[in-house]
Amino acid sequence: MCIVNTTSTDADIEIHGWVKSVRVQKNVSFAEINDGLSFRGIQAILTKEQAKELTTGTSVKLRGRLVESIGSEQNRELQVDQVEILGKCDAATYPLQKKHHSFDYLREISHLRPRSNTFSALARVRNCAITGFENFFQKNEFLRVHTPILTASDCEGGSKVFKISTSHQPVRPTACNSSGNNLEYFDKPVYLTVSGQLHAEIMASSLSRVYTFGPVFRAEESVTSRHLAEFWMHEAEIAFLTQLADLLEFTEECIRSTTTHILESLSTDIDFFRKWIDAHLISRLESLNGAQFTRMTYTEAINILSNSKRKFEFTPKYGTTLKSEHEKFLANEHCRAPVFITDYPKSIKPFYMRMNNDGETVACFDLLVPKIGELVGGSLREERYEQLESQMIEKGLNVDEYQWYLDLRKYGSVPHGGFGIGFDRYLQFVTGIDNIRDVVAFPRAVGQCRF
Amino acid sequence: MCIVNTTSTDADIEIHGWVKSVRVQKNVSFAEINDGLSFRGIQAILTKEQAKELTTGTSVKLRGRLVESIGSEQNRELQVDQVEILGKCDAATYPLQKKHHSFDYLREISHLRPRSNTFSALARVRNCAITGFENFFQKNEFLRVHTPILTASDCEGGSKVFKISTSHQPVRPTACNSSGNNLEYFDKPVYLTVSGQLHAEIMASSLSRVYTFGPVFRAEESVTSRHLAEFWMHEAEIAFLTQLADLLEFTEECIRSTTTHILESLSTDIDFFRKWIDAHLISRLESLNGAQFTRMTYTEAINILSNSKRKFEFTPKYGTTLKSEHEKFLANEHCRAPVFITDYPKSIKPFYMRMNNDGETVACFDLLVPKIGELVGGSLREERYEQLESQMIEKGLNVDEYQWYLDLRKYGSVPHGGFGIGFDRYLQFVTGIDNIRDVVAFPRAVGQCRF
Repeated sequence: MCIVNTTSTDADIEIHGWVKSVRVQKNVSFAEINDGLSFRGIQAILTKEQAKELTTGTSVKLRGRLVESIGSEQNRELQVDQVEILGKCDAATYPLQKKHHSFDYLREISHLRPRSNTFSALARVRNCAITGFENFFQKNEFLRVHTPILTASDCEGGSKVFKISTSHQPVRPTACNSSGNNLEYFDKPVYLTVSGQLHAEIMASSLSRVYTFGPVFRAEESVTSRHLAEFWMHEAEIAFLTQLADLLEFTEECIRSTTTHILESLSTDIDFFRKWIDAHLISRLESLNGAQFTRMTYTEAINILSNSKRKFEFTPKYGTTLKSEHEKFLANEHCRAPVFITDYPKSIKPFYMRMNNDGETVACFDLLVPKIGELVGGSLREERYEQLESQMIEKGLNVDEYQWYLDLRKYGSVPHGGFGIGFDRYLQFVTGIDNIRDVVAFPRAVGQCRF
Repeated sequence: MCIVNTTSTDADIEIHGWVKSVRVQKNVSFAEINDGLSFRGIQAILTKEQAKELTTGTSVKLRGRLVESIGSEQNRELQVDQVEILGKCDAATYPLQKKHHSFDYLREISHLRPRSNTFSALARVRNCAITGFENFFQKNEFLRVHTPILTASDCEGGSKVFKISTSHQPVRPTACNSSGNNLEYFDKPVYLTVSGQLHAEIMASSLSRVYTFGPVFRAEESVTSRHLAEFWMHEAEIAFLTQLADLLEFTEECIRSTTTHILESLSTDIDFFRKWIDAHLISRLESLNGAQFTRMTYTEAINILSNSKRKFEFTPKYGTTLKSEHEKFLANEHCRAPVFITDYPKSIKPFYMRMNNDGETVACFDLLVPKIGELVGGSLREERYEQLESQMIEKGLNVDEYQWYLDLRKYGSVPHGGFGIGFDRYLQFVTGIDNIRDVVAFPRAVGQCRF
């Protein structure tokens, strides 16, 4: 709550905020005022007359004196001298009355939902997570770089991508019209990036340690609680890194450090999520500081899944990707903790991952966490020219288009590796919120683009 | 330069990096090694034999002892015991030999140019500017929010926008093909955002003080030294703000604070730009800490321009936008300092700016800085329902589509204002680099989308 800094009570102060609730009593009235900057607002003590026009949602400027609270809920209250109504709020039509609202309903009024307890707490956790990651990378002497959103290359190969064009008017399916093509503006097809990794590798091949924080896009065709068409990622690339084990260590430290920062900075907000969303939240987050995350190879994971008594919809089988149900079993039930799955077969991973000596698996990992599944993915990158080129050919890439990427292996190539963290999924992880649509202010998914 | 932290010389250490230059002499050889994390690398002292395979661009791991330098250029040198070549670099074909390269040439090899002095210095300034802005907003208790990149609304109205679609294959202009339309994926036309402002206003109407840092897009049709199709902006929205003067004050403090942070953190890099790019750079940046930025109204600016003896291509005239030549005259010549131009006529500004009492001008500003022109634009936002609605109608907006925006004025409306800072232009400002294509690693503009 933004009040003039004062440690003494009895000081004459002014506050701004929105009325969250009002209790009009016979001799005295109470209003809870909040400006969104902290979980606890301030309780204002008013006369019945002063409280008359205050309804939930009204914005006000109050002048008065801070006094010691008699009740136990807050330390200080504002004994109001003067009320100025900034913006009225019609109680008859205001969509966010003080009562329980379902997440489904709140999503319908996403222009007002940051005023709810859950979404204002989320906004503060989001901000705190951002500073937590920033602090971590800066402390470790990484340079933040900007990789492009508009790109002519497709990092993952085979991801569903969005194409861009400059035509202002939408092309109607009924019209024979070529103005939807993007050759108008660029001299080639251009897409929204699915990952900044390849560009980040350019930067790491000069600057040693870099990270990005930006939006990426996948034209996912199904609606799930973990996928969005637009989401933010941290991607890191580290030159002179030779061991996958070191990359796991660093990734673990990154998650741990940021989570500790949030727990220390926003205990009231996190406790709110524990109370209302996920009773085991805090113990789960605090347990990150205990033992090292579990590590197992993909082969071991397949064996565990195969030997489990669990009936899966998809039978776990070497050479196939782990499905969501497999990931959840491993993290939620088998390990009950974050687990790194490493060394997947090359056949199910992208061309840029570094080949292991077995010629069959690649030096990569997925970090699975309880409730969420995959939170981070990373690998050593293939730094050997011939091996990389042969993987590109094997995966059907146009080698000429990626000559710039091969050049990084031609001129002073360095062993390196990196990872990408789904930032919005991380917010699910630290708040316990089930649906990724409820951690993002304006979620984008198939058929969904409000505002 | 990343070396094991040690203050004593004579310590046994290991360094990684790329060879920037080699001097082979009769008895002893020298190689300059840099890892991109700081301007100064380290000078390695080797035997002729050890230096044999080192060429510019080669990546190496060196082991040896730090010794006091005899020369004056650096304090310590590495007396090399052991050389390990990580990646060779063929001197015959390496595109980035140690010699002067033009910016035009370097743009052609943008996958290697972060290894050049200019572009590695730029990468460090970019990182430092990011932390400078972050520190400023966080210190002032702003919450960082994410506004969407994919959007169904067009903030500026009339900006040239990019439309998105999901078709994987580019639509050829010769084909009669409707697969370029974006109704495939979303249920309405969807564009790349030109500004996060309207969404940031949603957040500020609940959380009081918010800022964004993200990419925005304009399908600019001309190639200039100040425009890109994709660039990053900081946008801030501040609730309970009633005076334009306070917004100017805050904007000024934001620029000043970040610039001071850079000057203090990266003096060697900034001095490099002073030496090679812009001799007046440091004095210009340091002068920000002197007097308040100049303030004048648009009307005063038009009078100054009209009364100047300068022959402009476009005659300055009340009611028309200021052209680049006008902005440069005001900042570079008339004020020789940053200048806020305020209170433009409503006819040349967007619908959301707050009407002044004269009914003719709006409470807005552009901040013009020497060499660059417009760096920041901001305004108070119209918080009065009727006035806003009437401006929307006057500007031809579809009021129904913006009902959510009007709702913010219906339910607990608050006076507020905000601004947007072109981040890449700011980098031009603090480095003196003329062309915005040379401060962005992978610039996007009409016909330009490499990698």
